[in-house]
Amino acid sequence: VKLTKTIKHFDWEIQFFEHSSVSTKTTMKFSVFLPDPKKVPDSALIWLSGLTCNEENFILKSGFAHHMADSNTMIICPDTSPRDLNLACEHESYDFGSWAGFYVNATTKDFKDNYNMYDYINTEIYNLVTKFFKIKATKISIFWHSMGGHWALIIWLNNPEKYQSISAFSPIVNPINAPWGKKAFEWYLGSNKKDWEKYDATVLLQKWNVHKKLILIDQGTNDDFLKSELLTNNLQKAADLSQQKIQINMREWYDHSYYFISTFLGNHIDFHLQHLK
Amino acid sequence: VKLTKTIKHFDWEIQFFEHSSVSTKTTMKFSVFLPDPKKVPDSALIWLSGLTCNEENFILKSGFAHHMADSNTMIICPDTSPRDLNLACEHESYDFGSWAGFYVNATTKDFKDNYNMYDYINTEIYNLVTKFFKIKATKISIFWHSMGGHWALIIWLNNPEKYQSISAFSPIVNPINAPWGKKAFEWYLGSNKKDWEKYDATVLLQKWNVHKKLILIDQGTNDDFLKSELLTNNLQKAADLSQQKIQINMREWYDHSYYFISTFLGNHIDFHLQHLK
Repeated sequence: VKLTKTIKHFDWEIQFFEHSSVSTKTTMKFSVFLPDPKKVPDSALIWLSGLTCNEENFILKSGFAHHMADSNTMIICPDTSPRDLNLACEHESYDFGSWAGFYVNATTKDFKDNYNMYDYINTEIYNLVTKFFKIKATKISIFWHSMGGHWALIIWLNNPEKYQSISAFSPIVNPINAPWGKKAFEWYLGSNKKDWEKYDATVLLQKWNVHKKLILIDQGTNDDFLKSELLTNNLQKAADLSQQKIQINMREWYDHSYYFISTFLGNHIDFHLQHLK
Repeated sequence: VKLTKTIKHFDWEIQFFEHSSVSTKTTMKFSVFLPDPKKVPDSALIWLSGLTCNEENFILKSGFAHHMADSNTMIICPDTSPRDLNLACEHESYDFGSWAGFYVNATTKDFKDNYNMYDYINTEIYNLVTKFFKIKATKISIFWHSMGGHWALIIWLNNPEKYQSISAFSPIVNPINAPWGKKAFEWYLGSNKKDWEKYDATVLLQKWNVHKKLILIDQGTNDDFLKSELLTNNLQKAADLSQQKIQINMREWYDHSYYFISTFLGNHIDFHLQHLK
């Protein structure tokens, strides 16, 4: 793990790292907010970014620093895909390949060696948090935007004790029924739709998984992707059926961007800090 | 003046406009923060962005919304160059042409018809603020980042009553002695260096112009461009000679980015709101 850059921001430092990833067989980058580089933080928040983002979007645009004053909580922001490869169709669209790893373990010929972002987050980032940054395993929460959504919901439903709390802005929740998800899953996982279901939060929740803790979601009503790609309502229905506690705040007029995230970020950070206490 | 997009952000709206510019003979874009679209604001802040920026960078990255709660002050952010042209060398480098208008009125053959960003800001943006948005002429201040610096200093020194206050982050202050400035001025203004001096704040201040009000500047010591491009110290020397009141806060470890701007933005907004009261 190599520190590549340190930038001063408010009274703190933002650190940028790179490391050699076993899951992707590439050099992966991540950014970190550390309240005090000389002290082990009490807890950690993992942020998973969306399409077209990398390890810097959240740190630069969210205004998180306005909400961290009294906490000793770190934030870690992984990148959203492997980089510096040259695979088939990898760089041709914003919604597939680089910038768009979709946090799955690919099984198709072209992508299975590198596009293993599920393992990358679940094993490698998790190990970085607990071993390199020395955070206690009971002091980690996770939140995300858009594409990060289905991964975090899935890991949360499959590993009920692994994270103290999760929350989301504008998450993709039912990718097997949306154009972004269908394209990515076909290319990463092949054409057998049964194989897609383990990466679909709505399916998982309908079928068997209920989590005892509340899922917090904020969603803008003016989000261009709400009706075609995100399908928030399908998760609400699945939660109603399975009696999962879920709070979906539909926010009138807000869109899919960091203008929206930064507006409600304080609520989400407070929610996590409560659970991490 | 055409409203192209409205985005909700915190309790407010960000508006994006375009209009047909006489100075650049192109369609120009700008963004606006209006505290209350139904009310005329009491005052206006004009923000001039730096190289590689457009009308959105400040609005998206600065965290300004955390500092505007009790004010009825609008913010307007113009773009940094004409767009959608195809002039010689216009799109070949980050420090010249599009994204890099340098707020001068070009005199060279290729650029004089369009690259008139000095007039664009001084006349057209100013008229938009006073006529379209109906702000009183005595209630306008101006602040900026990097490339925006020399223009604002020059207009301030040449028009002592036009703006109530000015402030800057990491400004270019002596472009005739720096690579960015030399390249841009040679290509926009020709090779006669005498013609460059009217766009150089350090020269103006040495020669004749002193403003009775304080100039506020924040500058990071870890700014990669400080010693080669910004030359902050030359402005300090000129201010000492001419007895211009200037406060240059050298901020240890901070860089040239929005990580720096967002850290000290609250101080600058307070400074302007005091003068605009």
